[in-house]
Formats: sequence, C-alpha cells, structure tokens
Amino acid sequence: MPQITAVTVEDVRFPTSLTGDGSDAMNKDGDYSAAYVVLHTDSSDTTGVPLAGHGLTFTIGRGNDIVVAAAVQQATRLIGWDLDEMAIDMGGVYRFLTSDSQLRWLGPEKGVVHLSLAAVLNASWDLVARRAGKPLWKLLTDMTPEQLVAVADLRYLSDALTRDEALEILRAKEATKGDRLAELARTGYPAYTTSAGWLGYDDDKLRRLCQEAVDAGYGYIKLKVGADLDDDIRRCSIAREIIGDERKLMIDANQVWDVGQAIDWVRALARFEPLWIEEPTGPDDILGHAAIRRAVAPIGVATGEHCHNRVMFKQLFQAEAIDFCQLDTGRLASINEIVAVLLLAAKFGVPVCPHAGGVGLCEMVQHIAVLDYVAVSGDLTDRVTEFVDHLHEHFTDPCLVSDSGSGTAYVLPREPGYSTRMWPESVDRYRFPDGNYWATAAATPALTSGGAPAAAAL
Amino acid sequence: MPQITAVTVEDVRFPTSLTGDGSDAMNKDGDYSAAYVVLHTDSSDTTGVPLAGHGLTFTIGRGNDIVVAAAVQQATRLIGWDLDEMAIDMGGVYRFLTSDSQLRWLGPEKGVVHLSLAAVLNASWDLVARRAGKPLWKLLTDMTPEQLVAVADLRYLSDALTRDEALEILRAKEATKGDRLAELARTGYPAYTTSAGWLGYDDDKLRRLCQEAVDAGYGYIKLKVGADLDDDIRRCSIAREIIGDERKLMIDANQVWDVGQAIDWVRALARFEPLWIEEPTGPDDILGHAAIRRAVAPIGVATGEHCHNRVMFKQLFQAEAIDFCQLDTGRLASINEIVAVLLLAAKFGVPVCPHAGGVGLCEMVQHIAVLDYVAVSGDLTDRVTEFVDHLHEHFTDPCLVSDSGSGTAYVLPREPGYSTRMWPESVDRYRFPDGNYWATAAATPALTSGGAPAAAAL
Repeated sequence: MPQITAVTVEDVRFPTSLTGDGSDAMNKDGDYSAAYVVLHTDSSDTTGVPLAGHGLTFTIGRGNDIVVAAAVQQATRLIGWDLDEMAIDMGGVYRFLTSDSQLRWLGPEKGVVHLSLAAVLNASWDLVARRAGKPLWKLLTDMTPEQLVAVADLRYLSDALTRDEALEILRAKEATKGDRLAELARTGYPAYTTSAGWLGYDDDKLRRLCQEAVDAGYGYIKLKVGADLDDDIRRCSIAREIIGDERKLMIDANQVWDVGQAIDWVRALARFEPLWIEEPTGPDDILGHAAIRRAVAPIGVATGEHCHNRVMFKQLFQAEAIDFCQLDTGRLASINEIVAVLLLAAKFGVPVCPHAGGVGLCEMVQHIAVLDYVAVSGDLTDRVTEFVDHLHEHFTDPCLVSDSGSGTAYVLPREPGYSTRMWPESVDRYRFPDGNYWATAAATPALTSGGAPAAAAL
Repeated sequence: MPQITAVTVEDVRFPTSLTGDGSDAMNKDGDYSAAYVVLHTDSSDTTGVPLAGHGLTFTIGRGNDIVVAAAVQQATRLIGWDLDEMAIDMGGVYRFLTSDSQLRWLGPEKGVVHLSLAAVLNASWDLVARRAGKPLWKLLTDMTPEQLVAVADLRYLSDALTRDEALEILRAKEATKGDRLAELARTGYPAYTTSAGWLGYDDDKLRRLCQEAVDAGYGYIKLKVGADLDDDIRRCSIAREIIGDERKLMIDANQVWDVGQAIDWVRALARFEPLWIEEPTGPDDILGHAAIRRAVAPIGVATGEHCHNRVMFKQLFQAEAIDFCQLDTGRLASINEIVAVLLLAAKFGVPVCPHAGGVGLCEMVQHIAVLDYVAVSGDLTDRVTEFVDHLHEHFTDPCLVSDSGSGTAYVLPREPGYSTRMWPESVDRYRFPDGNYWATAAATPALTSGGAPAAAAL
C-alpha cells in the first residue's frame, strides 16, 4: 500500500525586517517565516513525479524553531499512514493528530502546538489533493455535503451549529455549485491589498503605492494604524486623496488598544469612512470586540488572524462581535477546522474575508475563498480576500491576481495541491540559521537575533 | 553589581501514568512533568549559600521538551540582569520578557510561549524573594498597593478594571493585613483534596481514599466525572455515602462535554448536590460556561486551569460565567498576571480557588492564596485551595497541610522563595530522556512515548 515514508520540517526565514515590509503598530520588525513540513511518500503523482505533501504555518521570526520542533513530533506520527486511507478519511487523520492528550495540554488547541498542527495538516491536505491530481479547492468543492461535514471538527460547537444544520447549509448550495465555479473561473475571487500601507513606509512611498494599487485595479486598500493618531490622520488623508471616495479604505490596528481607547481612536478616524477597523484590541477579547462594534458602527469590526480556534470564532459570532471573519490558514487546524468556521459564519451571516500576506498565506486562502463561495456561503457580498505582493517567488505554484474588468481578483489555481510547495533553492538559501543567506548575514549584526541571543541555541 | 549569570532549563518527567494518578476523562495517561528553570547568579542568599531562582510550569509529558525549548529562549534574555533592579522593578522584568514581538506571534499570550514565560517568571519571583530572605507570600503582602499595581499587567483590562479601581481595592485592605496574616498563621489556608477521585481508580480504592480524606480532616472532596454517566452516578453515591451530607463534594469533567451535553449530565448528577462542576466544556468557551451556569444553578461552575490569560478571565467575570476562579500558576504569566486576575476577581466578587496538583502547583498556590486573602479579597468565604498529595518529596521546601481543628489547611510557608526548588537528585533521576529513571525505563515499552515516536527526537 502507498504510504508516508518520511517527514522533513524546515525553519525558513525571510529577512523582511530589513525593508519594513509587514511593519505595524504591534509588530515592528518581523522576519516573515515558515515552519515548512514535507510529507514524503513511496508513491508518485499523476504525472509520475515522486509524490509529497507540502504545508506550512506562518510566523514572524524568532521562535519559528519552536514551531518546527512541535511539527516534527506531530508529523512523525504520520509515518506509515496509508495514502488510500487518508484520501477517504481526512477526518480520521485530524482526530489521530489531535488525540494525543499529553500534547493537547500545551494548548489546548492554541499557540505553538496548534500552529504546528496547522502546518502538518496543511501538508496532509496538499498531499491528498496532489495525489488526486486536483487543486485543493477542486477536491473540496467536489465533496458531497456528507463528506465535507465528516472532515469538519464540530466539537464544542453544537450549541451554535448542529451537524444537521451544517448538512442543511451545504445541501442548499449543492445544485448551484457549478454556476458559481463558472463565475469564479471568469472573474476570479475579489482581492484587496495591504502592500501600500505598512507603518514602516514614509508618506511618499505610501502615496506612490496607493497610486499603484489604484492603477492595478484594486477597489479596496488597507492601512496600518495605531502607533500615533496624528500620523494616522495624515496617512488616511493621503490614502483617501489618492483612492477617492468610491474605493474602500480599511484600517488595521494590530491589537494595540484597550477597548475604550479603540473606540476613541476609531471615532477620530471616522471621517475617512473606513469599511472596517481590524484587530482593534487583544484577539482573545470577544466581549471587547462586541463593545467596540456597538460603539463605532457603521464602521465594521474585523478580526481573526490571531483567533486561535473554532470555539473562539463561535463566540465572536454568538456575541455579534464582528462584521468580517478573517480566519487564518496557518492558525486554524487546516481544512478540518476551517470548514467548521465557514459553516458557523454562514449560519450567522458573517462574511469571511480570509487573512493573508505573510509567507504562503495568499497561496492558501485562494482555495478557502473558492470553497466558501462555491459550497458554503454561496455569497460574494462584502467578501474580499487579502493579497500582499511579496515572497510569492519562493513557491512553485504562486498565486496570481489580475484585473478582469470588475476589480483585482485571485485567479483560480490550476495546479494540483494547496499551492504550498516551495522551491528547494529557496528553502536551502533561507533555512535558519545555516542557509546561505543567514550564514552570510550572521557575520554582520543580524536583525533576526536582535532581541533574543538564544534564537539559534536550541 | 550582582546579576544573573547563567540559566538552565530541564525537562523533568515523573511516570505517573503507571499508577493512574491524575487520570481523568480527557487526560487518561499523563506523566506529570515540569519545565524547570534555574536562574543562576554571582551572588549568595541571606545565609551565604549561592543564590539562584527556581521556577517551573507543569505539563503532562510529551511536549515538555517544546516548552523547555521556548523557556531557554526567554530565560537566556535575562542573563546580565541586575538583581537590585529586578528587586525594585519586576514589572520591568515582565515587560522586557513580553516585549519580543516575534515570539509574541506564537501566542499571543497563550500556549507554549506563555507556559514557558510562566516558568521563567516564576523563577524570577523565586529569585527576588530568596534574595530578600522572604517567602514569596511575605514579599508580596509587604508591598504597598502602588507597588503591587506596578507589577500587575493591566493591559486590555481597563474596560473592566482601571488602575485607580485596582489601587482602591488594595488600599481598602491595607490597614487590616496584619489581622488576616495572624489568622492564617493560626489556622492555615483551607484546602480540599482531589487525591481520592481520579478516574483510573477502582471503587474500592475510591472508597478507601474518601475515608482517608475524611479521617484527615478534609471538608471538601473532588471527583473526576465525564467518561460514563452510570459510573459517575455509582462513584458519586460511594463518595456521598462516605463523606456524608455535611462535607462538600465537587465534580470535574475536564472539558469533555459540549454545552448541551454538560447541562444534561450535570442535571443527572444534581441529586448528589455538588458544590461545583469544574471544566464542563472547552476552556475557551466563555459564553458556553455562562449558558451552563444559568442552566445548572444552584450548582456552581468552576474553571481556570486552562484559562490562558487575564483577558479570558476578564470575560469569564464580565459574562457572569463562573462561580469559582481556578487560576493556574503554571499557565498565567506568574505574579504579574495573577495579581491582575486576583484584582478582577475581587472587583467582580468571584472567589479564587486556585488549581493545584500536578508537579509543584501546590507549592506555588499556597503563596497565591495567602496574597489573595491578606491583600486583595480580604475574604475566605467559599475559598478553598486544591491539594493533591503526590510528588512533594521532590521539592526542598514542600508544602504542608494539617488539620488545626477547623478542617485541613495549607500551613504558611516559612522558607524564602516560591517553594519551587527541586532536589538536584530528583532532577537528575527524572530528567527526560537521559535521567537514570528514563534511561532504564526506556529499555522496556515506555508509556511516555506510546503516542509519539518522536518525543525524544528533537
């Protein structure tokens, strides 16, 4: 029987802190990184090439090695798994990986062991889709409602969503899936850009990048805010001046405020009519988000990139705390948990606008957005998926956005898998700390080890 | 200037899965473990012995090495810290350790990096107390309200508790601290036992241990439930038969139920009149706990051992979700975060009954309970702190319970520090995987590696 024969997990870090890419009020100097899992097999894909599954989770530098260490423990348990069994029972793979009560203690279902679980399960889903010769969105939208519900983790959700309700939601979309797929094949899935608005960019660069985004056809643009109110007012003015009144402006505070402060600050920016305020306070503060939402309406509240599991999303919906659900493909435990969140969002009528950027997140979210529209929500209203234009060159099947006339959109991926396979050359060069880039960079004062002398000491 | 010169972090695991100690409906085979941090200095304590700080967090086996890896990174940053500066600014130590935005991404404030932070900060507080020649409870109760608030992390809490309110709470207790200390010196702090009720014990052992608990003077006894309702009814009957109607019975489900199931199950056990149902559902489910509490009253709802930070506790209080706050000294980021939770609990009028058991948790919670009564809540009503009678022999200053006539109680610790120093011989013997115990045990099928072949492969 074909099976998983070995696993490798690599600590890959890109020196994004050198350019200010990704800088925001909470995270000033991230080095975008991936804990990158490869599941090797004794089999070949549909084209005869040795078959492997590739998955990752995203971190911003130091500590990526800790996630790698956890992923090694989890992924190693998959050695010997039968690929045929995986193909028909990814719910079983999920339950097997989450059944270790000793590892569970370290979360449960949060933090390092959940990030690493996401990487391992992302690789598993990539493997299954590659073996089937389908892009992951296709594998998932080909599933019946019963099959999708069988892979979803609905534990702890039954007070908000029963299994029967989940099936009902999916069955209601079943007959018209083909129409929506044909539509996405024509138009792509709507995208917005954060590339313009990092806090580390000066006004001239902000102005130039906003103009480039407009020229590229973006109807939505996002700015980072929250470090200094005067700066925010000036930057929002510049952005509005360039993008005009028609296009949407979003703002993102990356968790820097307490609840009362968030309300005051957002009200001070209300005249720029942001579509949403993203991460206005601590990501665990469900009731805080609900209070902010009540106070700043009609400005929407968005969060999710640090929302660590489906139980937290359930409560964000129950408390009517958010207008936009920004689930993260590196933080939730892959498709099994994401399907549960998509179903909850559909039940509560909250649009899903996945978080992306980072490394590899854009590659993954395009599959999720398609799944949501085609099989779960059946709706594009207020849906737009984040796109950040960097680090795609490290992937063998990079995501693609283009303007088909109705605004910039993700083009449907065509290659088999989850689009998460990196070029071996990129992994070799940026492996921390021994890849060629870091071995050389380390000879000079290395930004990545600035705050933690022991980063490489494990 | 006296300073921290080196750190060691050890992976210490005890083979508790061999005896069923610690077995519950979620965690069937835990090997109680400690990620054990020692901060070495170039100084001596008040008796001339080389001075070091000792701290730990508690896990249940596999993955303890991951916590150790994270603790190494965090603790190493403390090398070179001036001990005089630490003594007057533990708030600064906390902010320094939590200021690394790259490591923060791996939580934030949850999971492995928060467990490891707890261990490092616990060692820091032990160090400061030892240097002062005081038990930690004494160091803390000697602080002024301003000093206590200065070490507390109040971020994200201001919608529930302002700094001024925190000061008010503490100032109101200031004049009478001495009275309450004198009372505790006489009576000790009330304790309850979980030693009798692990799921892995058979009925005869349950019966015998309940009788022993009664004979030892316990007025509160806790049973694990949630695996099988018929078993639970039989076990609760046995316990009630032995302990009578006067003594309190608590039950603990360790997160196994969905919300609706929890309500049904607890109602089926209502005739045994439990004081509380502990961890009825997933620990992140604030609104779920609130729903259960409304449905099972007057049975109380208790949770906290997996409540990962102060923001979650804030919401448990805001949502009126719990009757008892079971904060955990290995999961919250030590005194800095615990003081914030004690203040919140006092403001909302919820009694704090710290979670203990495990390894070293009993040693720590006795200090917290004293702090709460003497300086924060000023109240013993409905307060009782968990005690489990195992693994204390591995500590140089083990906690002590005794019956002074009004029920079994923790005796006030007298030795300097946080009571978290382990015997070097214990660390050597149980260090995983190379300590003498494990090196020998590994020659036979080792329970600790049953589920994860890679546990030792990092």
